[in-house]
Amino acid sequence: MAESRLSPEAFLELVQSGVPFARYLHMSMESMHYGQVVMRMAYHPDTIRPGGTISGPALMTLADCAMYGVVLSAIGRVELAVTTNLNINFLHRPAKADVIAEGRLLKLGRRLAVCEIILHSEAHHEPVAHVTGTYSIPPTKD
Amino acid sequence: MAESRLSPEAFLELVQSGVPFARYLHMSMESMHYGQVVMRMAYHPDTIRPGGTISGPALMTLADCAMYGVVLSAIGRVELAVTTNLNINFLHRPAKADVIAEGRLLKLGRRLAVCEIILHSEAHHEPVAHVTGTYSIPPTKD
Amino acid sequence: MAESRLSPEAFLELVQSGVPFARYLHMSMESMHYGQVVMRMAYHPDTIRPGGTISGPALMTLADCAMYGVVLSAIGRVELAVTTNLNINFLHRPAKADVIAEGRLLKLGRRLAVCEIILHSEAHHEPVAHVTGTYSIPPTKD
Amino acid sequence: MAESRLSPEAFLELVQSGVPFARYLHMSMESMHYGQVVMRMAYHPDTIRPGGTISGPALMTLADCAMYGVVLSAIGRVELAVTTNLNINFLHRPAKADVIAEGRLLKLGRRLAVCEIILHSEAHHEPVAHVTGTYSIPPTKD
Repeated sequence: MAESRLSPEAFLELVQSGVPFARYLHMSMESMHYGQVVMRMAYHPDTIRPGGTISGPALMTLADCAMYGVVLSAIGRVELAVTTNLNINFLHRPAKADVIAEGRLLKLGRRLAVCEIILHSEAHHEPVAHVTGTYSIPPTKD
Repeated sequence: MAESRLSPEAFLELVQSGVPFARYLHMSMESMHYGQVVMRMAYHPDTIRPGGTISGPALMTLADCAMYGVVLSAIGRVELAVTTNLNINFLHRPAKADVIAEGRLLKLGRRLAVCEIILHSEAHHEPVAHVTGTYSIPPTKD
Repeated sequence: MAESRLSPEAFLELVQSGVPFARYLHMSMESMHYGQVVMRMAYHPDTIRPGGTISGPALMTLADCAMYGVVLSAIGRVELAVTTNLNINFLHRPAKADVIAEGRLLKLGRRLAVCEIILHSEAHHEPVAHVTGTYSIPPTKD
Repeated sequence: MAESRLSPEAFLELVQSGVPFARYLHMSMESMHYGQVVMRMAYHPDTIRPGGTISGPALMTLADCAMYGVVLSAIGRVELAVTTNLNINFLHRPAKADVIAEGRLLKLGRRLAVCEIILHSEAHHEPVAHVTGTYSIPPTKD
């Protein structure tokens, strides 16, 4: 796999200083290659919802961060890249356990990047959620 | 407008005890009628993202809570109702100001509810995001 | 309402010569203003599906054409504008009757336009489908 | 791979008698197993759009039919199963060539099935579109 254009450390520092409320979610980067990342959200009681499962907003935040990681792994540190669309299908209720996000590029154009993120639980085989999203990439000044 | 089948106070208590990380987002309910709610997310530095705007995950969390409010306003306190799909289009970057979510039912079936949420900023006219989502309603035992 | 930057006649001619299979769907333009269109799909037995209702693909085709109309009403005749994302929620099964599509701009940026389309049946009040979509607008040469 | 609960012939007959306008699209079933189908849409001038590529509605129709095939491959001939949500991201403009749809189940619940469809062109490697969709499965009478 080709190398990421941003280090996992630089990416996490960008997320945690720039999106302060993400620090409540205990996310880490398992691997980061060009166009392909694996993130982990450690289980924590703050992320549960009524019914005893992990809340949708926590899963969406993990997916959005993984998507941001996928995009920056391919274009480098471009802070103004922004999500324009995110679609999530919730599949199976995750157990009270870590959630893993596997993200990859579906398309990298000059102006748009489209990504797919699959969320799994460490505690069972059924996938937790499937996400697709689009990032808008700011024009380069040239 | 018809009356909500859950009080705003009961709804917020359900969200804040059940989804602990939502309390970082300073949400309140402006109005809650049958199938129609208005929520507010107060501006707070924790919700910003790189580029000086409010982060996507904070906006998605607000939208998801408003959707939950719309559904419970129509079916009452059913904790096991869960989001099955959420689609968000980000429209204009919100200023550093409160965000208002206006949610309404598009359809209430026996098994699925479909909602629309529009996010506005208090600081400008352009809409911030448009969200549609589907909730699965558990079968009633009868 | 501001004037459309393309006439309904020019728009329909563009659709029907450019998308030959759309002519099986008997679509017409009821009104076309800047950022806002109303299209009609006449009922025809070719558009039904198993179960005696109008098929999803016919409804999606109508929505996509209405979205194209919304975009061209605002930017004029730009053939290379293309859909990048379309999300449809089917709400109520339409009766065997004409379907009306009401489309409007949610956002017009330099590079992306986001639209909302609501599909109604002439035969009942419940909405048939809700659609959001994104168009990519090619850069102007200047 | 497990066997489909509906034969490809029975499926295509169901589509072509039940969705008459689909016959303009020259679709065939390449393979059909439990929860996994491959369909082909033969290139035909009727499916082009302005700009010389295959129209979005033709691609969405192919995806919707493939999704229907995925669902029926797993639950058998249930005509009243209906799409409730479809989300499509268009990735690369297809050349004037056959388009292949590869569909699979992401989840099969008692009430909802979620599918993923990837569209490829026979003429190039870049994927044409990525689709996710949800089907509502009618309750069984028991």
